[in-house]
Amino acid sequence: MEHLTDEAAMDLAVAAALEGVRGANPLVGAVLTAPDGQLLAVGRHRGAGTLHAEADALAAWAALRETDPQAAAVDPAACTLHVTLEPCDHTGRTGPCTGAVRAAGIGRLVYAVADPTGTSGGGAQTLRAAGLDVSGPTGHAGSLALTDRWRRARATGRPFVTAHLAQSLDGCAAAADGTSQWITSPASRAHAHAVRGRVDAIVVGTGTVLADDPRLTARDDDGSLASVQPVPVVMGHRRIPAGAALRGHPALAAGEEPLHLRSHDPAEVLAAIAAHPGPWPHGRGGCEHLLIEGGPTVLAAWIAADLVDELHVYTAPTFLGAGLPAVSGLAVDTLAHAVRWTPDSAEGGPVRPLGPDTWTHLRPATAAGKE
Amino acid sequence: MEHLTDEAAMDLAVAAALEGVRGANPLVGAVLTAPDGQLLAVGRHRGAGTLHAEADALAAWAALRETDPQAAAVDPAACTLHVTLEPCDHTGRTGPCTGAVRAAGIGRLVYAVADPTGTSGGGAQTLRAAGLDVSGPTGHAGSLALTDRWRRARATGRPFVTAHLAQSLDGCAAAADGTSQWITSPASRAHAHAVRGRVDAIVVGTGTVLADDPRLTARDDDGSLASVQPVPVVMGHRRIPAGAALRGHPALAAGEEPLHLRSHDPAEVLAAIAAHPGPWPHGRGGCEHLLIEGGPTVLAAWIAADLVDELHVYTAPTFLGAGLPAVSGLAVDTLAHAVRWTPDSAEGGPVRPLGPDTWTHLRPATAAGKE
Ligand SMILES: NC(=O)c1ccc[n+]([C@@H]2O[C@H](COP(=O)([O-])OP(=O)(O)OC[C@H]3O[C@@H](n4cnc5c(N)ncnc54)[C@H](OP(=O)(O)O)[C@@H]3O)[C@@H](O)[C@H]2O)c1
Ligand SMILES: NC(=O)c1ccc[n+]([C@@H]2O[C@H](COP(=O)([O-])OP(=O)(O)OC[C@H]3O[C@@H](n4cnc5c(N)ncnc54)[C@H](OP(=O)(O)O)[C@@H]3O)[C@@H](O)[C@H]2O)c1
Repeated sequence: MEHLTDEAAMDLAVAAALEGVRGANPLVGAVLTAPDGQLLAVGRHRGAGTLHAEADALAAWAALRETDPQAAAVDPAACTLHVTLEPCDHTGRTGPCTGAVRAAGIGRLVYAVADPTGTSGGGAQTLRAAGLDVSGPTGHAGSLALTDRWRRARATGRPFVTAHLAQSLDGCAAAADGTSQWITSPASRAHAHAVRGRVDAIVVGTGTVLADDPRLTARDDDGSLASVQPVPVVMGHRRIPAGAALRGHPALAAGEEPLHLRSHDPAEVLAAIAAHPGPWPHGRGGCEHLLIEGGPTVLAAWIAADLVDELHVYTAPTFLGAGLPAVSGLAVDTLAHAVRWTPDSAEGGPVRPLGPDTWTHLRPATAAGKE
Repeated sequence: MEHLTDEAAMDLAVAAALEGVRGANPLVGAVLTAPDGQLLAVGRHRGAGTLHAEADALAAWAALRETDPQAAAVDPAACTLHVTLEPCDHTGRTGPCTGAVRAAGIGRLVYAVADPTGTSGGGAQTLRAAGLDVSGPTGHAGSLALTDRWRRARATGRPFVTAHLAQSLDGCAAAADGTSQWITSPASRAHAHAVRGRVDAIVVGTGTVLADDPRLTARDDDGSLASVQPVPVVMGHRRIPAGAALRGHPALAAGEEPLHLRSHDPAEVLAAIAAHPGPWPHGRGGCEHLLIEGGPTVLAAWIAADLVDELHVYTAPTFLGAGLPAVSGLAVDTLAHAVRWTPDSAEGGPVRPLGPDTWTHLRPATAAGKE
């Protein structure tokens, strides 16, 4: 039988959390251990409206106790719950985690990172006051990395930002004559549509609207509209043509103008989106998850502003020669100034074949000491 | 228990073959089945000087028979050996496979693809004459794909050609100011050195010699020279500087000039290499495996000539903006004319993380009907 140290239990909680997908909600994992360090249950947050990681682990343990007398004999007061993020203390779509932990009679809590949100903070204090032995924030490195960009987005009150890059092996988004449909495979496009389905809004530049006339809808594999649709957002000064396909987007009311931000500045776009009443398909408090789909100029602007929290790269096994660069306008003079990313293991990453293409999942490399 | 059809047995043989690495020797797999289709043994060719796939499968079966009475009771004459490539009939570093098959008393042989080599062909005929029930070539698609480029190289008497591409996410081989050491990670470079160790020669352009002054040696992880060294070859008109590092290459005798081919034409380079006496570290009959390391101009020339049989792409998770393209000069005007590749499952491919980088293993896409 394995006996986990606190550190190993937290590593396991991180691994569980990474089975999820990134977005408006943080990736959180939880592990319950017996007094001797024996693993009792693993939990993770599986997305908006579902149990938080702590409650998920406790539910798994409760289910185990119903069938396993040995598990039922373990005293909860002697058990430790390890959570990558401080338990919440507020009632959202699910009850507060502090309540679930107290109801289960757990005696000890270790958490890695303090909850940075004003509304749900204070869970550790509540549990300490209730008599639990609480350790944290421990600053466990894996847990910090798990949510570093999510916490940064939260701290500045902006949405979590995912970016999409579909390109040839030689980094082109289109051939020399502009042809680009389709560089990537149906499997890559299906993945990209699944991402569209989980965000509140999609940002593209006027260049993409004029060149590709995209619909910007989330579609299922058979081409039918997904039940939940992101809001289309266009940035840039040129007009959106009267007949543009995105004017018929299902997220727009009849006659409603698409959200068109006449700006080149991602920060201005974020401010305008924050001021927009919505409705947003997922975000309760506003637009909480943004997808930057491009094109090359817009993508570079968001990357240069360090406003991309997660990057999906779809690379097709083709060379396009002197085609259109897929990221255009990043000012890098020398190798030491390269824009660096780091492999992201969430969502089954960091790399996977998608049909003939390669999917690479990345998050920004954190400069040492930045955290 | 699983009962394999001939087709399923050959699929399994292909999968076994793909555990190997590409090079001067073809990837070959073999599967031995009982009369009812039960799987008895799997074999594959593990590289120069080791047992061929047929002999490897028969050896595995012989070992099994020593310990397993049920296996020992199976009559070899009722068994079928499935091989992705026609068994050889000649004595090389190992005995002829036809001999091994006859010695084992196997009754039936199915092979997928005829052996195209003059020296080792004729195995099927030999076994038919010896009384075996022989079916083939069946044209099994997976087996054809397994060796299509190897057979093309053999048919034209040229070496198998592997190419190497190390680049940033945006397809650059160097930053705008020329800095390129190191774009990729130590794990990628270790993989690239392992590839260097298995080829007969490495080709680079004068541009790379002048810009990077590479040593072109195969080195182990600790930086020490590998025991077997590829021969360095330079193509292009400019002179190799007197102090160039590759002049001290361990494959050169004291005072020996490096092989410098004053040409821009890959076909001319192949002819000159064929005329060169060597010695080559691996090839018995000459240079049988060539590695194109670049730079961007040379790589594009070999790709454009359809002379690259296998491509290793190492992609670092960085953007270099307006850096030096990693492949330079491919004339592709429109998406329909893109240079297309297909995922290569050999050597643990087609994709794998290598440290922070992504390794993608590709082979040329065969135009429909080309086979
Ligand atoms: N493969 C992919 O993933 C993908 C995705 C989308 C598009 N594409 C391809 O990309 C091509 C279009 O390229 P693109 O670069 O023109 O597309 P883009 O990035 O969508 O649009 C660029 C335009 O947006 C405006 N803009 C917004 N923010 C800007 C900023 N920070 N700096 C400068 N301009 C900004 C400018 O137009 P104004 O003058 O109107 O302000 C600019 O010309 C098409 O060929 C399309 O097929 C590929
Ligand atoms: N990341 C990588 O994998 C990698 C690998 C190698 C090099 N590099 C980088 O590549 C850069 C050098 O680029 P490069 O393109 O000059 O390197 P290159 O491809 O090694 O050399 C090009 C030169 O070779 C000659 N040449 C040979 N065949 C040719 C052909 N078919 N067409 C035209 N010229 C031919 C020409 O020079 P002559 O006038 O002498 O004939 C040409 O200028 C360096 O910055 C180096 O760091 C990167």
